Amino acid sequence: MTTTLIHSIGTLFLASDQTPVLARGAQLRTPATIADAYVLMEGDRIAAWGPMDHCPTHPVDARIDAQGGMVLPAWCDSHSHLVFAEPRAGEFVDKIKGESYETIARRGGGILNSAQKLQALPEEVLLERALQRLHAVQRQGTGALEIKSGYGLTVEAELKMLRVIRRLKAQANMPIKATFLGAHALPQAYQNNREGYLDLIIDQMLPQIADEGLADYMDVFCEKVAFSAAETDRLLEAGWRYGLTPKIHTNQFNSMGGIETALQHNALSVDHLEVVNDAELQLLAQADTIATLLPSAPFFINDSYPPARALVDAGTAIALASDFNPGSSPSGNMCFVVALGCIKLRLLPEEALTAATLNGAYALELADEVGSIGAGKRANLILTQPVLW
Amino acid sequence: MTTTLIHSIGTLFLASDQTPVLARGAQLRTPATIADAYVLMEGDRIAAWGPMDHCPTHPVDARIDAQGGMVLPAWCDSHSHLVFAEPRAGEFVDKIKGESYETIARRGGGILNSAQKLQALPEEVLLERALQRLHAVQRQGTGALEIKSGYGLTVEAELKMLRVIRRLKAQANMPIKATFLGAHALPQAYQNNREGYLDLIIDQMLPQIADEGLADYMDVFCEKVAFSAAETDRLLEAGWRYGLTPKIHTNQFNSMGGIETALQHNALSVDHLEVVNDAELQLLAQADTIATLLPSAPFFINDSYPPARALVDAGTAIALASDFNPGSSPSGNMCFVVALGCIKLRLLPEEALTAATLNGAYALELADEVGSIGAGKRANLILTQPVLW
Repeated sequence: MTTTLIHSIGTLFLASDQTPVLARGAQLRTPATIADAYVLMEGDRIAAWGPMDHCPTHPVDARIDAQGGMVLPAWCDSHSHLVFAEPRAGEFVDKIKGESYETIARRGGGILNSAQKLQALPEEVLLERALQRLHAVQRQGTGALEIKSGYGLTVEAELKMLRVIRRLKAQANMPIKATFLGAHALPQAYQNNREGYLDLIIDQMLPQIADEGLADYMDVFCEKVAFSAAETDRLLEAGWRYGLTPKIHTNQFNSMGGIETALQHNALSVDHLEVVNDAELQLLAQADTIATLLPSAPFFINDSYPPARALVDAGTAIALASDFNPGSSPSGNMCFVVALGCIKLRLLPEEALTAATLNGAYALELADEVGSIGAGKRANLILTQPVLW
Repeated sequence: MTTTLIHSIGTLFLASDQTPVLARGAQLRTPATIADAYVLMEGDRIAAWGPMDHCPTHPVDARIDAQGGMVLPAWCDSHSHLVFAEPRAGEFVDKIKGESYETIARRGGGILNSAQKLQALPEEVLLERALQRLHAVQRQGTGALEIKSGYGLTVEAELKMLRVIRRLKAQANMPIKATFLGAHALPQAYQNNREGYLDLIIDQMLPQIADEGLADYMDVFCEKVAFSAAETDRLLEAGWRYGLTPKIHTNQFNSMGGIETALQHNALSVDHLEVVNDAELQLLAQADTIATLLPSAPFFINDSYPPARALVDAGTAIALASDFNPGSSPSGNMCFVVALGCIKLRLLPEEALTAATLNGAYALELADEVGSIGAGKRANLILTQPVLW
């Protein structure tokens, strides 16, 4: 097994022999860090870490001089739509000309546009394009990833997407979780038959997905342009019958009961939250559910940012994720997400870094594997440039 | 001389045998482009370009298959402060905590903080750090660059900065222009003696700078926290006596006569323009002066963006530049500037690209060398990835 030593690390971030707890409120600002440190890796695992005073002196296969750079856990990106046919470049221009996300969605653009393109692509081509993006985000520091279906919207195409994600799991050198998002938008064919599409999800998609073991989580887009809180309730209940924990899209544009519904179903996370009222803030502060914030989406579509400070100050556990998708967030760059976390969400650097690593790992139920630096964990690490000027 | 052929280019942007004119208003949307093209380079110059039908068949030293990717002129970044001691990371956190740019400036942070650090650094160290940044922005596609002084604020330190820029000119594989910005902020030592500092600039800095030929342009920060329009007037007049064309910082936070003063002095460009009133919009529409917009600064300091659409629609020539500096824009990434141009300034992609290349070249008086693709011009090119998904 190859041994690699990183020495002369200026700051080792989130290093702990025990997996740190999910960080809520002020805990986000106090990650375990040590100065002047080393990390020893054996194969793809962390073998040891500590202060340079105790740096191993035995021979290793490779030595990396961090020259005072920082080492932190790789990004745990807990919300992405990385499997898609192509970016919606035409809609990018429509938005410059003044059309809103909702206007574009209502005229059959947005998710329905992506679904049309994805349905037409063979699984092999979809896989090849997704792999290119996966390698791109890995180069940008992502070391664990969630990927959703939801650009299929037919039994066949949803299964195709989830099979692509299964193949990505097998080929990627990092943990990946799959989320079933059949309820991403109401397909054209069901515009006058909402119940029919819910039945399709519940009676046909879910059983086949469960049968093939294709999904880890259940997602619904609870929003005016998508599904109501009552529909979300029905879908999450159906998901649970197949053992799928909910992680849902809610409160992106409207506060309409999604958070309450998600909490009733013990959701692992509620994602987006650009619009949150006081009652919802209080509910979240008392819940175990993680608030996953996706600042790239409001950046790209010129929407308002989620109230990150209010959430953190109320004691909620937040995660930061990319929302990488072909329309409203055409980037999976978690460095940019963390920068937006500081500049636009007003998170302190240590809060943003903890949210994008440790809490992201919790939002994927992978905190024992990734998201912090400890013996036995995966050696998915980011080493910054030694000199910051 | 090494010959290199780029073939199978999907779109060749701003290709013309004659240097295209400075693009105003609607001209920004109509750059000369050709589809399915080649470019032939000899040494560091463009030798020929055209449709693939006419692609040269003679042997070349290197062939690059663009696979349908786009080729455009490298970015011409006409406003930067790339020579500095170190980023103001502490102030980045102060801003997250709610302090404004102006509050930080008034308590001796900001430019005065950077000046204190730069004054203490030897020329060699300053050069080494600047070279690292220069190479970083070149990797991000910058092919021509303006660099300002203005973190010296003493005769000695301003000359040191300008000598560093002269050494960068000699070492960089791209054209660089130097701008004298002694009037960037009033130094601590002159807080009760504004006239004394203006005299220092006019009577001591300018003659020595002219004597050593250290500057191409004259800049003043016309702003409440810096210098008034009347002071700007006096300084620009003094600059002209030494042959220095004005390029000034104005209307970043306040409209206070800077644009009018700059136009009276035939400024090459007026830079920032976050705050522009109707009268100023009309003045600019009739002037030859270029409006240089720096969207990274309002992005990083959460300020309002310049009224780019109003400027373009009035027929003004705009350029996009990075404002790379250690505080309000700690990034020289022109790809990000162009993205902000589209997403935040609502420029169409072709408008933003033209503003960041051709018009940037005009804002550096380098349009015959860079900023478009034609025989004899520098082969400073950007080749995009072949596949955009």
